[in-house]
Amino acid sequence: MTDRPDSPAPLRVALLGCGTVGSEVARLLTTSASDLEARIGRPVELAGIAVRRLNRERPGIDPALLTTDAMGLVLRPDVDLVVEVIGGLEPARALILAALGRGAAVVTANKALLAEDGATLFAAAEEAGTDLYFEASVAGAIPIIRPLRESLVGDEITTVMGIVNGTTNFILDRMHNEGAGFSEALAMAQELGYAEADPTADVEGFDAAAKAAILASLAFHTRVRAEDVHREGITDVTRADVATATAMGSVIKLVAICTLTDDPEPRVSVRVHPAMIPGTHPLAAVGGAYNAVFVESRSAGRLMFYGPGAGGGPTASAVMGDLVTVARNRVRGASGPGESSYAARQVAPIGDVVTSYHVSLSVADVTGVLASVAHCFAEHGVSLQTVRQEGTGAGAAVTTAEAEEPTGGSARLVIVTHAARDAALSATVEQLRSLPEVHEVISVMRVEGA
Amino acid sequence: MTDRPDSPAPLRVALLGCGTVGSEVARLLTTSASDLEARIGRPVELAGIAVRRLNRERPGIDPALLTTDAMGLVLRPDVDLVVEVIGGLEPARALILAALGRGAAVVTANKALLAEDGATLFAAAEEAGTDLYFEASVAGAIPIIRPLRESLVGDEITTVMGIVNGTTNFILDRMHNEGAGFSEALAMAQELGYAEADPTADVEGFDAAAKAAILASLAFHTRVRAEDVHREGITDVTRADVATATAMGSVIKLVAICTLTDDPEPRVSVRVHPAMIPGTHPLAAVGGAYNAVFVESRSAGRLMFYGPGAGGGPTASAVMGDLVTVARNRVRGASGPGESSYAARQVAPIGDVVTSYHVSLSVADVTGVLASVAHCFAEHGVSLQTVRQEGTGAGAAVTTAEAEEPTGGSARLVIVTHAARDAALSATVEQLRSLPEVHEVISVMRVEGA
Repeated sequence: MTDRPDSPAPLRVALLGCGTVGSEVARLLTTSASDLEARIGRPVELAGIAVRRLNRERPGIDPALLTTDAMGLVLRPDVDLVVEVIGGLEPARALILAALGRGAAVVTANKALLAEDGATLFAAAEEAGTDLYFEASVAGAIPIIRPLRESLVGDEITTVMGIVNGTTNFILDRMHNEGAGFSEALAMAQELGYAEADPTADVEGFDAAAKAAILASLAFHTRVRAEDVHREGITDVTRADVATATAMGSVIKLVAICTLTDDPEPRVSVRVHPAMIPGTHPLAAVGGAYNAVFVESRSAGRLMFYGPGAGGGPTASAVMGDLVTVARNRVRGASGPGESSYAARQVAPIGDVVTSYHVSLSVADVTGVLASVAHCFAEHGVSLQTVRQEGTGAGAAVTTAEAEEPTGGSARLVIVTHAARDAALSATVEQLRSLPEVHEVISVMRVEGA
Repeated sequence: MTDRPDSPAPLRVALLGCGTVGSEVARLLTTSASDLEARIGRPVELAGIAVRRLNRERPGIDPALLTTDAMGLVLRPDVDLVVEVIGGLEPARALILAALGRGAAVVTANKALLAEDGATLFAAAEEAGTDLYFEASVAGAIPIIRPLRESLVGDEITTVMGIVNGTTNFILDRMHNEGAGFSEALAMAQELGYAEADPTADVEGFDAAAKAAILASLAFHTRVRAEDVHREGITDVTRADVATATAMGSVIKLVAICTLTDDPEPRVSVRVHPAMIPGTHPLAAVGGAYNAVFVESRSAGRLMFYGPGAGGGPTASAVMGDLVTVARNRVRGASGPGESSYAARQVAPIGDVVTSYHVSLSVADVTGVLASVAHCFAEHGVSLQTVRQEGTGAGAAVTTAEAEEPTGGSARLVIVTHAARDAALSATVEQLRSLPEVHEVISVMRVEGA
């Protein structure tokens, strides 16, 4: 193709990484070559593929393209575009900086690196007048980066709330649908290839937190790093939590939530944690490995983006979209939008964020227990939205404090609070743990989307 | 703001039209001025607003900006960016061409003009090396143009299916939820401001067809004009259709469907018509003035975009996103993607498109009626998916042809076909009308999303 006399010189692509996503990108660069050329205005071709091991089976990949010298590939003067799908901080950072440093455009799916050190990468791209695109870093194939960075850039985004980790969504689905405990559901996910052998990045919320940092940075024109994100994983979600959620007509989802506080000078709040979502909320229906992101803004109102959140094909689709865009920019001598962090808002600590809690307690089934629990909330300025008391003693009949005689055994209180500062809510729960009437705090979870 | 010595020279915006959308754009240009400057890298300011009448009340708009000489405004040498929200073919076309001709960038919400004569506009933008952006032309605030034009440009889109007209969606909702007939539901919509005094563009599907043409052009890299779109409105949707849909657990929606045929050399099919959508399909839940667009592609899989489809705020959000993008491009001396119509696929006539039908018939309740109806379908090569026979005579008991004695009155047959060429399906229905056993063809509708 490159030797056809009627074609302009090709743009040459260095592909860093040849796993699930990389091999799909390599395949598409070959099978879609003529469409890509028509869309870009110049042919694109693979200059080389950096891999860790040369001797692995790679069906459909020309072995002559493979190299273990990633830096050598990036620094080749004939490379115009670099696609980084290795992941992790190093050597990805050094390779991307080297690529940008010599003016190559970079497409990356590396959420961890962007959330850790995006500012350095953006500065390098800006200085070289070249492009850094990263649609594949969040929510797989779902176009969310470009809508935030470009479509909504004339609007004022107030909330981004999403399910951005398919692994945890799969695990929570299993816990809901099959009554599995966390470990059991995790084992299923691992067996089916939805979770890695070391699942920490997913189940502890690190992956979602990196994505939340990227989304918040774009939405609020502010640098937000992974370490700014309040992060709670799903390892402590119990069968009791799931049962309580089900009883309330809710589901537990790991959500990434980016909001502006309503201080006079709004701060940015970014958090990742499991939350109870009402069954009627559109996010509640997002199952399995799917992702969905809600965006709320002053003029546009509420938008939702939905699609497959991971996998070779979907992630490669996002990478290829960016690749065509940066290639078109190169053909036109242009570059896309750079970092926009002018607002430089402060990040609010979780304690300052306004949330609401669901609390499920095992309490002594004695007269006055509801009063002392309610008093505890009131002392912290937290008002209650609903309280339900269920007997769990021998009779196991549903009782309310007023209507029925106490059995002397234990009863369950299920409480949903009104919105309050998170610090007040967690202090309340701490104090509840020390009340003599409270046998056990069975389940505590934030409620979102109500 | 423009006189501050530390600010670079402002980019100057000519706003054509000051109705619901235009006045909101004018307001945002003022109230968000400092954010816009930070995001673009230069201030933007209104150079003037072209209106039809000067003497109308326009709260918050500086009367000194108003002019009735739209062409004079567009041709002013200090105008960098032109926002066209007048709508309609002329004078919008002449104004946009004049703007592009002198190198100004254009942002437009004008679906009718783009679907009628987009090629001329794109050619003018390309020749001048300037931008033509049109996110607001389809589905209000929902980012759909940019995802199709950029995010998914490295992928192969196979289907775009959407609810892209809020007025008809509102009317159909009322027919479903309140048992209203079409005229009654239309009157409600007009009263509430969801439908115009002359509702033709909405209820006859012209608005949706223009949007479908734009979506198909982008998805399939092919020029598709409004006249290429097979169009059926909702004026013939009856209470009987709605009742039948409800009985089947479906809802009737006006859908815009863009697909590739599976010919060896795929053609483009673009159609707008009411269809029965199963209640379990995500599009079924899109109510009122909301819009939603499904996109299916080879690598990404199924994506959905959802949000408010019209209104001043949402449409202004889309316009402002484009405005910031073209302004950024101008600051960088760049321009965004132009028209991509290289694939130049043929447009398939509706008869060649593969669809499936729901048909509801009033038939003579005599032995053998099912056989002759089934024979009629078979003759046209159409196979049946489900057949339900309901007695509607005096007994009104549900009967099946084999299980019960005919009553000699009339019965109802409810048929859903397998997928077949639309021409075969419509020929079948024509022939059914002439069968002596068929008293009436009560309802005929395509079934989508099953």
